[in-house]
Amino acid sequence: MQQERQRPLILISNDDGYKARGINSLINMLRDMGDLLVCAPEGPRSGRSCAFSVLTYITLTKRIEEKGLTVYSCNGTPVDCVKLALDQFCKERKPDIIIGGINHGDNASVNSHYSGTVAIALEGCMKYIPSVAFSLCDYSEGADFEPMRDVVRKVTADVLAHRLPKGVCLNVNAPLLPTFKGVKVCRMAYGTWGNEVVTQRHPRGFDMHWLTGDYTNDEPEAQDTDNWAINNGYVAITPTTIDVTAHEAMAEMKLRIEN
Amino acid sequence: MQQERQRPLILISNDDGYKARGINSLINMLRDMGDLLVCAPEGPRSGRSCAFSVLTYITLTKRIEEKGLTVYSCNGTPVDCVKLALDQFCKERKPDIIIGGINHGDNASVNSHYSGTVAIALEGCMKYIPSVAFSLCDYSEGADFEPMRDVVRKVTADVLAHRLPKGVCLNVNAPLLPTFKGVKVCRMAYGTWGNEVVTQRHPRGFDMHWLTGDYTNDEPEAQDTDNWAINNGYVAITPTTIDVTAHEAMAEMKLRIEN
Repeated sequence: MQQERQRPLILISNDDGYKARGINSLINMLRDMGDLLVCAPEGPRSGRSCAFSVLTYITLTKRIEEKGLTVYSCNGTPVDCVKLALDQFCKERKPDIIIGGINHGDNASVNSHYSGTVAIALEGCMKYIPSVAFSLCDYSEGADFEPMRDVVRKVTADVLAHRLPKGVCLNVNAPLLPTFKGVKVCRMAYGTWGNEVVTQRHPRGFDMHWLTGDYTNDEPEAQDTDNWAINNGYVAITPTTIDVTAHEAMAEMKLRIEN
Repeated sequence: MQQERQRPLILISNDDGYKARGINSLINMLRDMGDLLVCAPEGPRSGRSCAFSVLTYITLTKRIEEKGLTVYSCNGTPVDCVKLALDQFCKERKPDIIIGGINHGDNASVNSHYSGTVAIALEGCMKYIPSVAFSLCDYSEGADFEPMRDVVRKVTADVLAHRLPKGVCLNVNAPLLPTFKGVKVCRMAYGTWGNEVVTQRHPRGFDMHWLTGDYTNDEPEAQDTDNWAINNGYVAITPTTIDVTAHEAMAEMKLRIEN
């Protein structure tokens, strides 16, 4: 009983839904490392960023309850899942770590802004709980996450043991490869989405626009970025801040605007 | 004609919808400063962050077309509005500035992560277009934005004249006061939302959870934050970065994880 209570509490969510292969692989990888509390969307919520439900209500449905694993689904966004799980289930016992993923598809570079998976880590970080987002560069439903097992376990163990600096979470992106050359701690690459809109005619006679696009790494030569790492066979780990201040721009802006 | 083409093109969106008082006040304030292209959501989209429409289509409806002012509404998110406006209307002539707001309610501290208004500026910044988000600390529909006129015009003129550093946009928050003591260039305060969930019983017999909450400034003594500025009568201008890397945490994380 004493020993039981010392197992870490690991809160897990994702943006592909609780049935997705990525989150179920993650559960499998972490099952022996702690008590897992999963609260994940009912279905796909890609591209939801830090969105939360302002005007609509959220519901929770218990899906699994067994020793060391509880799974809820939620009709809301990834951030809703984290807020609700913390409020409803974690008042007595705070999670030791919050993990988003494993995402089907990469969340490197500017994608981190749009990602619901990264938003889970940001939300945890805003609550001062060590948090990590894991993603694999494979959008397919049937993606194989097994190559990530070692890095997922190693990063989770490290964060459980040493926590993370205040305001910092981790955004981990793995390339689509059977094995990795290693792990690189990187900065976010500057990159741009282009050709983002495809327009079709709806059968009822109006234009419908779909968002899609092509991504360009705007710093292809730089070797210290997340894009470089995943393009060169490494797992990219980007320490990610919730402090959005452009500190290095403050002096100039003070001179320009503050008087 | 020559002179006509030299007027700046100002792309405007918001997250309260194209009918909101805030965006219409902004249009009024900027009308003589350039050609205004407005593409804003059909209705309220607060708390949508950088969310964009992944699986659903987006539609556009032209609402106003007159000399120097074109207004479209869009059924999507604030970021959808920016992406669509750039793709559909700005291929020949790129906006000189993108402006989000004026938001009904403050987007200081961690609120910037959830804000659709700030997301407009981030989206512009990700496209290397100088971008600014304006918010007023008044959530009410009938908020009076007139006190912001001078700062809105001054900041817009400054950014049009001098642009912004790469990867940096501005998050401007004004206190709810008839006049301001001045303008402070600040960093984002660390703050936390608590008591975020209210649960009610739906008439049909299930729990519905609503997100709400109380905000706490976790650094009340610090005088260099956005929270301090707006609580002390100043307009807070936070230079905001799209580079989410926690650069100062990289050395430690390299030692811990990279080997």
